Amino acid sequence: MNEFSLIENYFNWDNLDLNALGVGDDCALISIEDNYQLATSVDTLIEGVHFPSQTSPADIAYKALSVNLSDLAAMGATPKYFTLALTLPEVDEHWLEEFSGSLKSLASKYKIDLLGGDTTKGKLSITINVTGIVPRHKALLRSSAKVGDVIFISNTIGDAALAWQQIQQNTQPSQNLLKQFNTPEPQVALGQSLIGIANACIDISDGLEQDLGHLLKHSHVGAKINLADIPLSKEVTDYLEKTKDWCLPLAGGDDYQLCFTVVPDKVSEVKALAKELGVQLNSIGVITKDTGLKYLKGLDQECSAYQHF
Amino acid sequence: MNEFSLIENYFNWDNLDLNALGVGDDCALISIEDNYQLATSVDTLIEGVHFPSQTSPADIAYKALSVNLSDLAAMGATPKYFTLALTLPEVDEHWLEEFSGSLKSLASKYKIDLLGGDTTKGKLSITINVTGIVPRHKALLRSSAKVGDVIFISNTIGDAALAWQQIQQNTQPSQNLLKQFNTPEPQVALGQSLIGIANACIDISDGLEQDLGHLLKHSHVGAKINLADIPLSKEVTDYLEKTKDWCLPLAGGDDYQLCFTVVPDKVSEVKALAKELGVQLNSIGVITKDTGLKYLKGLDQECSAYQHF
Repeated sequence: MNEFSLIENYFNWDNLDLNALGVGDDCALISIEDNYQLATSVDTLIEGVHFPSQTSPADIAYKALSVNLSDLAAMGATPKYFTLALTLPEVDEHWLEEFSGSLKSLASKYKIDLLGGDTTKGKLSITINVTGIVPRHKALLRSSAKVGDVIFISNTIGDAALAWQQIQQNTQPSQNLLKQFNTPEPQVALGQSLIGIANACIDISDGLEQDLGHLLKHSHVGAKINLADIPLSKEVTDYLEKTKDWCLPLAGGDDYQLCFTVVPDKVSEVKALAKELGVQLNSIGVITKDTGLKYLKGLDQECSAYQHF
Repeated sequence: MNEFSLIENYFNWDNLDLNALGVGDDCALISIEDNYQLATSVDTLIEGVHFPSQTSPADIAYKALSVNLSDLAAMGATPKYFTLALTLPEVDEHWLEEFSGSLKSLASKYKIDLLGGDTTKGKLSITINVTGIVPRHKALLRSSAKVGDVIFISNTIGDAALAWQQIQQNTQPSQNLLKQFNTPEPQVALGQSLIGIANACIDISDGLEQDLGHLLKHSHVGAKINLADIPLSKEVTDYLEKTKDWCLPLAGGDDYQLCFTVVPDKVSEVKALAKELGVQLNSIGVITKDTGLKYLKGLDQECSAYQHF
């Protein structure tokens, strides 16, 4: 069972009050006052599953917070606070110093406060729960893509998956790949700026194919994607030339980029935003009435998407 | 290093904004609107550390949420929502059904919504982050006990610690002990009712001695406790008669009761509250100007408090 059916089967309860949007989007939304809603999300990273054992404490902390901030980014939320549940095999002060230093530095950069925590003894794992705020009824949802929308993604995809593959094969990844793998940058400013521009938005941490699939399903639409338009780093382009393995960028996961849709009239606003923020924003296809995800020029393989189990 | 110095050393940062009370109390408080603040807290339970491997999924869920609700109770907060980070060795549908059913039932009882989650593969552990609301500037803090205050605790202590000891010795605990150990009841209604009555309050999940110690330290006061006044179940009373091991109830931990202080004038209000809520509330001592914790009639042993590491 993958994570989504697990949540749907066991934890997709009707919410009791709060006028809340619960399980089923990147973040949960809670009405709090006239003009804002809270957005909250939680992610766990486990040693050996989400990062290799040799990862530095600084990089572990960076990634643990960053992947959570990426969920806030996908809603267009402004980060406000987070809690940390840290399970450690032992108290290693050097490790903790490096971990907390990196966490604090990233938290300062994104102006998010650490407001609580729990530490327990066990195999290394990090659970962070982030909360942000977003103007009421303005959050970027995955359920509101419209037929005819142009689909964009930020920056490049597949870099972290290629780094992970190389590490498992005892090859040293390039600095660029390692950066995307260990210290991915959450697209917080982009998400905030997309409010009022994008119709729908999702982060593609489980891979473009799977996460865009969620967006399409929740929006009751389909998409045509032009593989040639998908932005790739030089390393991933070289890898594809050698292997033709499109599944790595499409389904490898660990891409903390945003995939969003806009009406064609707003494409020029997206281009202006890319320039303003210094972020690559490339159109990769269009939303269609026919459901399902189709690749132009075909894809001669079926990819197995990232599964949490 | 115990949890408190660990947090103090590594995670006790100055908060950036939000007019927030961060690390250092049972819950973090965040100003959200004119009349309320959010209260949020996170706790992790790990198999073999916080519950025995043979514990039923229903009891694991109950305890995981209950111990978090106890932190809200200690602040006088009304539960609102929580997130769940669940790490599982495998997807066992029967296990999940029982776990989620119990979680849902307890959540309904306390009117708290599950608003988000993450599931990962690994050794069984459960991290819950609860959030509640509390009237602004009315939260029950551990830092505001006053000299002369009467100290109360709710119900009995030591039951869970005795159950755990018996389980480790392969003795079957009584139904009452097992109930306190597996499905402790958070004192949510009591906490809410103590707003305006108690000067200071804390939950004693790490044991009365350690947690009352925190309250005293944060309030810059001391306390005299009369051991004879500490409320104990028949099982723990019998155990003490045999063993004289006062450390079990005082420092065994896992008691989800509230310890709070009131000015002597309000003792009658506490008695009325006990009757109204059907909760035992016993005075066990007084707050003193001399710092430190003293036991009347002496305690002929030093207890080692519950340590997270």
